[in-house]
Amino acid sequence: MPEVTLDPADPEAAIAAAAQRCTNWGRWGPQDVHGTLNHITDEDRRHAATLVRSGQTFSLSLPFDMDGPQKGWRRRTNPIHTMLDTGSDAEAGRQGFPHGLGGADDVVTMPLQCSTQWDGLGHIFDHGRAWNDRRAGDVVTSEGDKVTGIETAADLIVGRGVLLDVGRVCGTDGELPDGFAITAEHLQHTITAQGVTAQVGRGDLVCVRTGQLARARRAGWGDYAGGPAPGLSFTTADWIRATDVSGIATDTWGFEVRPNEFHNAFQPLHQVAIPHIGLYIGEMWNLDELAETCAADSRYEFLLTAAPLPVTGAVGAPVNPIAMR
Amino acid sequence: MPEVTLDPADPEAAIAAAAQRCTNWGRWGPQDVHGTLNHITDEDRRHAATLVRSGQTFSLSLPFDMDGPQKGWRRRTNPIHTMLDTGSDAEAGRQGFPHGLGGADDVVTMPLQCSTQWDGLGHIFDHGRAWNDRRAGDVVTSEGDKVTGIETAADLIVGRGVLLDVGRVCGTDGELPDGFAITAEHLQHTITAQGVTAQVGRGDLVCVRTGQLARARRAGWGDYAGGPAPGLSFTTADWIRATDVSGIATDTWGFEVRPNEFHNAFQPLHQVAIPHIGLYIGEMWNLDELAETCAADSRYEFLLTAAPLPVTGAVGAPVNPIAMR
Amino acid sequence: MPEVTLDPADPEAAIAAAAQRCTNWGRWGPQDVHGTLNHITDEDRRHAATLVRSGQTFSLSLPFDMDGPQKGWRRRTNPIHTMLDTGSDAEAGRQGFPHGLGGADDVVTMPLQCSTQWDGLGHIFDHGRAWNDRRAGDVVTSEGDKVTGIETAADLIVGRGVLLDVGRVCGTDGELPDGFAITAEHLQHTITAQGVTAQVGRGDLVCVRTGQLARARRAGWGDYAGGPAPGLSFTTADWIRATDVSGIATDTWGFEVRPNEFHNAFQPLHQVAIPHIGLYIGEMWNLDELAETCAADSRYEFLLTAAPLPVTGAVGAPVNPIAMR
Amino acid sequence: MPEVTLDPADPEAAIAAAAQRCTNWGRWGPQDVHGTLNHITDEDRRHAATLVRSGQTFSLSLPFDMDGPQKGWRRRTNPIHTMLDTGSDAEAGRQGFPHGLGGADDVVTMPLQCSTQWDGLGHIFDHGRAWNDRRAGDVVTSEGDKVTGIETAADLIVGRGVLLDVGRVCGTDGELPDGFAITAEHLQHTITAQGVTAQVGRGDLVCVRTGQLARARRAGWGDYAGGPAPGLSFTTADWIRATDVSGIATDTWGFEVRPNEFHNAFQPLHQVAIPHIGLYIGEMWNLDELAETCAADSRYEFLLTAAPLPVTGAVGAPVNPIAMR
Repeated sequence: MPEVTLDPADPEAAIAAAAQRCTNWGRWGPQDVHGTLNHITDEDRRHAATLVRSGQTFSLSLPFDMDGPQKGWRRRTNPIHTMLDTGSDAEAGRQGFPHGLGGADDVVTMPLQCSTQWDGLGHIFDHGRAWNDRRAGDVVTSEGDKVTGIETAADLIVGRGVLLDVGRVCGTDGELPDGFAITAEHLQHTITAQGVTAQVGRGDLVCVRTGQLARARRAGWGDYAGGPAPGLSFTTADWIRATDVSGIATDTWGFEVRPNEFHNAFQPLHQVAIPHIGLYIGEMWNLDELAETCAADSRYEFLLTAAPLPVTGAVGAPVNPIAMR
Repeated sequence: MPEVTLDPADPEAAIAAAAQRCTNWGRWGPQDVHGTLNHITDEDRRHAATLVRSGQTFSLSLPFDMDGPQKGWRRRTNPIHTMLDTGSDAEAGRQGFPHGLGGADDVVTMPLQCSTQWDGLGHIFDHGRAWNDRRAGDVVTSEGDKVTGIETAADLIVGRGVLLDVGRVCGTDGELPDGFAITAEHLQHTITAQGVTAQVGRGDLVCVRTGQLARARRAGWGDYAGGPAPGLSFTTADWIRATDVSGIATDTWGFEVRPNEFHNAFQPLHQVAIPHIGLYIGEMWNLDELAETCAADSRYEFLLTAAPLPVTGAVGAPVNPIAMR
Repeated sequence: MPEVTLDPADPEAAIAAAAQRCTNWGRWGPQDVHGTLNHITDEDRRHAATLVRSGQTFSLSLPFDMDGPQKGWRRRTNPIHTMLDTGSDAEAGRQGFPHGLGGADDVVTMPLQCSTQWDGLGHIFDHGRAWNDRRAGDVVTSEGDKVTGIETAADLIVGRGVLLDVGRVCGTDGELPDGFAITAEHLQHTITAQGVTAQVGRGDLVCVRTGQLARARRAGWGDYAGGPAPGLSFTTADWIRATDVSGIATDTWGFEVRPNEFHNAFQPLHQVAIPHIGLYIGEMWNLDELAETCAADSRYEFLLTAAPLPVTGAVGAPVNPIAMR
Repeated sequence: MPEVTLDPADPEAAIAAAAQRCTNWGRWGPQDVHGTLNHITDEDRRHAATLVRSGQTFSLSLPFDMDGPQKGWRRRTNPIHTMLDTGSDAEAGRQGFPHGLGGADDVVTMPLQCSTQWDGLGHIFDHGRAWNDRRAGDVVTSEGDKVTGIETAADLIVGRGVLLDVGRVCGTDGELPDGFAITAEHLQHTITAQGVTAQVGRGDLVCVRTGQLARARRAGWGDYAGGPAPGLSFTTADWIRATDVSGIATDTWGFEVRPNEFHNAFQPLHQVAIPHIGLYIGEMWNLDELAETCAADSRYEFLLTAAPLPVTGAVGAPVNPIAMR
C-alpha cells in the first residue's frame, strides 16, 4: 500500500486521490449494483457456516426505541412505536372479535439510519456521482433509490464475519478514546494480536469494535450521534480496497473517526468508500457481548447473517445482524 | 393425537378444548417470555449450520413497499417510504456539505404486521389472557408489549428450517385453492412425500408453502390480505403441540385457512397457538424460490436465520428471513 | 379577455401563451412569497366581517381519516391516526399517573395533500420555475420549501368568501357530470344567476361547487382522487388573472376538469395558476351544507377564515376552513 | 365563589371536591359531546364579528416543525415533515409529468399534542371517567375517541376572544415567573386593569398570556414542555365554572401552574376542567404579537376562529387560531 500523507487543509484533493487509487467503478461491469458484496461467493458462505462450533447466536442490534441516540440531526429521530390495538382493549372486550379472540397490532415510524443499520450504495455521493459512476440524481430521487436500493442486497449479506476488537487490543479498558483514528497499522496489529482466526481477506464482513458504544451505554448517549468518536482513519481506504472485504461495521454512529482528520470536513472516508469502492458500511452495531465471547476462547470468526430489511428503494436499512459461532 | 371433531357452530368450545389439550402454560416456568422458542438449543443451531451444502442463500421476505397487499384492514397499510435527502439535491449542490460530499437519507412508516413478519407472543389473546396466563392488559398497553416484546426474541430465531411444500405435494400446479384446510394428515403426507430431509421435530422452524403467494403475484393481490386462502386447519393445533416445533411460517396473510372452519369465527387457531402454545407464527413469507431449489435436489432442510427487527415492545416485527442450504 | 382557442395536441404552447398573458411575476417585487394573497387588504377583511348576519358557521373540511379518497397515487395515503395513550389503559389504572388522573394522546401521519387543503406556491412548477421566476430546486428541496412554505400564509387567508354553486346553476340535480369543463362563461352565468352577493372581485376567496363531492359521498369515492371530474377549464386562467381573486377552492380532488382538455396532459391549469399567477388553490373542500344555506336565502358571500396548519416548509397544508355568514 | 383551601398532601380530595362543585355532567343531557362549547350561540358569534375594527389578523399558532419544544415525554415528538416530491427533481426533469409540469408533495408525522393545540374532551379522565360520566374505555380505545373526537368541534370554536395579559399586568417585563399560580384574583385584577373590553362572560374564549413563551423564544425551549411554568391555579376551577367560558388557552405547555400546587401531583386542574366541566383547553398558543397590539389601543376583545384540524377520533388537534380585531 502506498504511503499516504494528508494535507488537512485540502480534503478535496485527498478524496480525489484516494478515489482514484481505490475505485472499483466498472470492476463488475457498468450495470453492477452490488459493489463489494460481489466479493462473497456461495463457496465463501458455505465455508462460513463451517465456522459454527457451539451454535451460540448473538444479536448485534441495538433495541429500536425512543431511548436511542438520535437527537434530530438532519431530521433523524429515534423510532416511534405506537399501538393500533392493545391488550387492554382486548381484555376489556372492546375489539369486536368473536369467540373471545383479542389482538394487538402496532406501527413504527423511523428513519432508516436511526439505529443499527447498513448504509446502502445510494447513501453517499462524491461530487454528484454515485456508485459505479452514475449521476446521483439518476439514482436517488424523492421516490427513493431506483438503482441500488437496499432490496438488491436482501439475500447477499451472509458470510464470514471477523471481529477486530481494536478497543481491546489498542485501547484502555477495552475502549478507544474519542478522536482516535484507527489506521491500517492498528487493524493489522489487532489481527496479529488476535491470531489466526482474525485474518481478514476477500469477501469478509469485518466488525470493528472501538468500545465507544460500551462507553455510551455506561455514561449516556451524549453526542454519540455525530459527536467525537473513535473510528477508521481516512487512510484506511487503501486497506479496504486492498483486502477486498465485503463490508465493515462498527459500534459507532459514523464508522470513521470524528472529528475527521481534515479541517472543515464531513465524513471523507464515506465519500471514497461508498461511491468509489462500493463498500457496504454498518453503523451502530452492538459488538460487546460478541467481543466478550470471542476473547474468552480467542476465536474471532463466525457466520454472520446480516440481512437488511428490504425496504424497496431505501438507501440503507435497519438490520438485526446475527453472529453464530 | 386425539381424533378431533369440530362443531362449526361452536368455535368457543373447540378453542377451549384445544387450549386445554395443547397448553404450554407453565412449561418453562411462570416468568417465561419465549414460548416455543425454548425448544431450540444451541446444539440444535450448531447442527442446523451443518445442513449448509452449497452456501446458497434465499431471502424469504417480500419487498417492503407500497405495492404490498394491505388494504387498510384495522388500519394496516403498506409501508410508506420517504426521503429526507436525495441524490437530486446532492447533484445540484444544495445540501451544504463540504468537499463535494452528498448524501441521501430516508424514513419509513409501517405497521409491523404489514408484510413478511413474525407474530410475537403479545399479538393474540384468548378471553383476555396472554401467553403463560398473564392478563392481556398487563402485557400490552398503548405503550407496547412490556413483557413479551419482540426484542426478547432478537437472537433466538435461528435453527433448522424445514420446508413443507404442501402446495406442490397436495395441490394442483403447485398451489392449493383458497379455503383449503391443511390438516395434520396433509402435513404428514407432505413429509412422507418429500423424504427424510423433511422430517419435523422439536425445535424446528417449519415453512409451510401453500402456493397462494405465487398465485397472488401472478394474478394480483386481490383479497390476499384477509380474504379466502389456503392454510392450516384448526385441527393442527394438536400436531403443533405434539411436534414441539419452534415456529411455523406460511406464504399467506394469515397462517390458517380462510374462511375459518367455524361459522362466525376469526382466526381460531391463532387463539390457541399464540397464547396457549406460545408459538411463533410467520406470515407472508416468500417461499417460492426456495421451494424450487428444494424440489430440484429433494433436500428440504436448511439453516434458517429469521431475526426480527427488535423494535422494543413490539407485538410482532418485520423480518428478512434467510434460508441457507 | 382574449378569445382563447386551444390546440388539444399542444398543451405546452397553450400553457406558455397563458403564462405570458397571465403572469404576476414581479408584480409585488422580486422577493414576494405571497402571490395572490397580496390582493387581500385588512380593509377587505374588515369588510368581510360585516357580511356576518346570523353568526352561523360552516366547517368546509372533510373529516381526516382512513375513509378518505386517497388510493396511493404518488404515495398519497389517507391519514393514519394512532393512539399513544388510551382511555382503556386509563380506566384500568395502567398509566402511572397520581390521584386518579388518566390521559389519552394521539399521533397522525398524513400527506399534506391528502384531504381538504391549500396548495402552497411551492406545489407546482413550470419547466423548473417556481412562483416569481425562481428555480424550483432553489425553492423546494428534500428539506422542504425554504421560500414559499405554507407558514408564510399562516395569518393571511381570511377575507370575503363567495360561493359559486356552478353545480346548482349549470348542472342537473345540483351536480355537474365528470369531464364538465367550467368556463369563464359558466362562472359569469352563475354569478348572474345568484345575484349581487355573488359578485367576484379583487381579493375574494372563491369557492366553486361542482357537486362531485356530493356524488362521491352518495356513491362512494371511486376514482374521486385523480379520476374524471368536473372542474375549471384551462381557459379560466385569464378570468382568474383578470378578476384578481386571492384564492379558488373546489369540492373536487384537483380543481381543474379531468380528463384535462389536452391530449396527454396533466393539470395544465395548475401549471399556469400556481407558478405564474401565484394563486392559492383549495381542493377537496366540502361546500354542500354551506351551499344549501346560501341557496335558501340567496346570500352567497361570507367571512371565510381558512388558516392552513403552518407546517414549516410545507408545499401545502390541511385546513379546516370556516365560513361564517 | 367559595373560599377554597387546599391540603397540598391530598390532591385526590381536592379534586373530588372541586369536581363536585363544578361539574357540568348532565347539564346538556346525557348524550352531550360538546361540553362548554355549548355556551356559544350563533348570536354570540354574530356579535363577535362586530368586534372587528381594523381587519388585522393574527395567527396564534407556533410553526409546526422540528424546532419545537417536545423532548419525547410520553413519546411526544416534534413534527417530522418529509417530502414526497421536490423542486429539485422537478427542475432536473425526473418526475415523468408531461408538458414541463413539475410538482412537490409532502407528508407530516406528528403527535396531535405536539404544538399549538386544543385538548379535546377525551384527553383527560378522572378515575376512569370521561366527560359527562362516561367510562374512559368506552370513549377512547386504541381506535381513537369514538364519542367526543375532535371532529365534533369542527365548526364550533368561533366566538368572542378575550386576551387576559396576566404577564403584563401582574408580572415583570411582561412575564410571570415559572411556578407562578394565577388565581381568580389575578384574573379579575387583569380584567379590571385592562378595562371594559376585557370583561369575561358566558361563551367567551379566553386567552391567558403568561409571558413564558416569550421567555422560551428568547432563552431557548429548555424545559418548556413539561417543566416549571406559570399557569392557572387549581383554585380557578370555580372561576371557570362560574364564568361559563367556552374555552381557555395559554401560551404555556400545560395550561396550569407547574410544579402543581400539591405534592406528588400531575395536572390536577385538567382532571376537573376536562372531564367534569367539559372545558376546551388550548395550549402552546402564541399570544405575543396579539398582546402587543391589544395593549397599544387597550382593546382586548376580538373575533377568534380556532377551528381544530378535524382528525376523526382525535383526543385533541393542532390548530392555527386566527384572532381578528
